[in-house]
Amino acid sequence: MGFAESMLLAYPGPLPHVDRIALTECIEACMESAQIATACAEACLSEPDLPELAECIRASLDCSDVAGTTAKVLSRHPGYDANLRRALLAACRAASALCAEQCERFAEAHRHCRVCAEACRRTEAACERLLDV
Amino acid sequence: MGFAESMLLAYPGPLPHVDRIALTECIEACMESAQIATACAEACLSEPDLPELAECIRASLDCSDVAGTTAKVLSRHPGYDANLRRALLAACRAASALCAEQCERFAEAHRHCRVCAEACRRTEAACERLLDV
Amino acid sequence: MGFAESMLLAYPGPLPHVDRIALTECIEACMESAQIATACAEACLSEPDLPELAECIRASLDCSDVAGTTAKVLSRHPGYDANLRRALLAACRAASALCAEQCERFAEAHRHCRVCAEACRRTEAACERLLDV
Amino acid sequence: MGFAESMLLAYPGPLPHVDRIALTECIEACMESAQIATACAEACLSEPDLPELAECIRASLDCSDVAGTTAKVLSRHPGYDANLRRALLAACRAASALCAEQCERFAEAHRHCRVCAEACRRTEAACERLLDV
Repeated sequence: MGFAESMLLAYPGPLPHVDRIALTECIEACMESAQIATACAEACLSEPDLPELAECIRASLDCSDVAGTTAKVLSRHPGYDANLRRALLAACRAASALCAEQCERFAEAHRHCRVCAEACRRTEAACERLLDV
Repeated sequence: MGFAESMLLAYPGPLPHVDRIALTECIEACMESAQIATACAEACLSEPDLPELAECIRASLDCSDVAGTTAKVLSRHPGYDANLRRALLAACRAASALCAEQCERFAEAHRHCRVCAEACRRTEAACERLLDV
Repeated sequence: MGFAESMLLAYPGPLPHVDRIALTECIEACMESAQIATACAEACLSEPDLPELAECIRASLDCSDVAGTTAKVLSRHPGYDANLRRALLAACRAASALCAEQCERFAEAHRHCRVCAEACRRTEAACERLLDV
Repeated sequence: MGFAESMLLAYPGPLPHVDRIALTECIEACMESAQIATACAEACLSEPDLPELAECIRASLDCSDVAGTTAKVLSRHPGYDANLRRALLAACRAASALCAEQCERFAEAHRHCRVCAEACRRTEAACERLLDV
C-alpha cells in the first residue's frame, strides 16, 4: 500500500463520492512526476546538446510545478470543489502531456528523458481517469 | 513598475501575442494571493472561532498553492501552450473565487479575511482578463 | 528501485562525492513527508478536537513546504553547493522533527497523526544521515 | 504598505519578539526573488549563450524554490521555532547569494540577470538582518 492510500484510509470524515484507487494512483503519479521532471530538467542542463533541450526543460519545470500542486490539492479535500479539481486535473493532464511529448523526442538519446516521459504518461492517464469519474 | 514587469521587459526572445499589462498584473496578483492566503490560513488557526474556519483554511491553502504555481507557469513562457495556460488560469480563478467566498463570510469578524478576500477577488479578475484575451 | 534512484542512475554528468543510497532515500522520504503532512493537516481540519490541533497543523504545513523544496534541491544538483545543501537539510530535519513531535502527541487518538509522525521521523533520520556524510 | 505588512498587522494573536519591519521586508523580498528567479531561468533558456548559463539556471531554480518556501514559513508563525527559522533563513541566504553570484557574471550581457542579481542581493541582506535579530 502506497503512502497516499494509507493517509486516505486514515481520513476522519466521510469521503466524498470518489474512486479511492483512482485518487491515490493519481496523487502518487503526480508526486513521482513532480520529482522526476525536476531531475530531468537538471539532467538536461548537463547534456552536451543543451541548446536543443530548452523546450524540454521548460515543459519539465511546468510539469513539476503543476503536478506538485495537483498532488497537494487532491490530498487536501477529496472531492471538495468540482470546478477547481476538474480545472486543475485538466491543467495537470496538459502539463504532463507536454512534458511527455518533449521527452519522447529525446528518449533514445537520454535515458532520463525516457524515464520522465513514462512517468508523465502515467500521470496524464491518471488525471484522465479522475476526470472521467 | 512592478518586478514582474521588469522581468517581462528584459525577456530576450520575441514575446507571444499577449497583453503585457494583463500578464504582469496577473502574475503579481497571483504572487500576492499566494502569500496572503498562507498568512490568512495561519491567522485563522489562531482565532477563537477556529472550528468554524476549517473550510476557510482549506480554501486558503488551495488558493495559495494554485496561485503560486500559476505565477510560476505564467512567468515561464509567456504564451507557450494555450491548453495548459487556459486550464491553469481556470483553476486559479476557481481557487481564488472559493477562497474569496469563504473569507467574505468572515470579513466583518476578521480583518485578515477581509484583506485576503480582496486579494483573491483581484486575482480572480486578473485570471478572467487573461482568459478573455 | 524507487523513482528517485532511477533518475540518479540516468544522470549524465559525473556525480559529486555523495552516498547515492543516502541521497535517494532522503529525496524519497522528503517527497513522502511532503504529501503525508499535507494530508495530515487536512485530516486534522476534519477532527472534532480541531482547536487542540492548531500547532500540529502549523507544523505539518511547514514540514510539507520545507520537505518538498528539499526534495527539489536535492534532485537538482547532487552535491553542488555545500552551504545551501547543509542549511536546507538542517531546516528539513528541524521541520520534520517538529511535525513528528506534534503528531506523536495525537498518535493514539488519530491514525493519520501516527502515519505522519512515522514518515517525519524517517525524513528527519534521512536528513541526519546526509548531514553526517 | 506592502501586502505582507497588512497581513502581519491583521494577525489575531500576540506576535512573538520579532522586528516587524525586518520580517515583512524579508517576506516581500523572498516573494520577489521567487518570481524573478523563475523568470530569469526562463529568459536564460532563450539566450544564444545558453550552454554557458547552465549553472546560472540551476542557481535560479534553487533560489526560487527556497525563497518561496521561506516566504511561506515566515508568513506562517512569526517566530514560532527558532531552529527551523534560522536554518531556513541560512538556506535562503545561501541560495540567494549563489543566484546573485551567477547572475552578476552575466549582468552586463543580460538585463534579466542584472535585475535578478539585485533582487537576490536584497533577499540575501533581508535574511541576514533577520538572522541578526
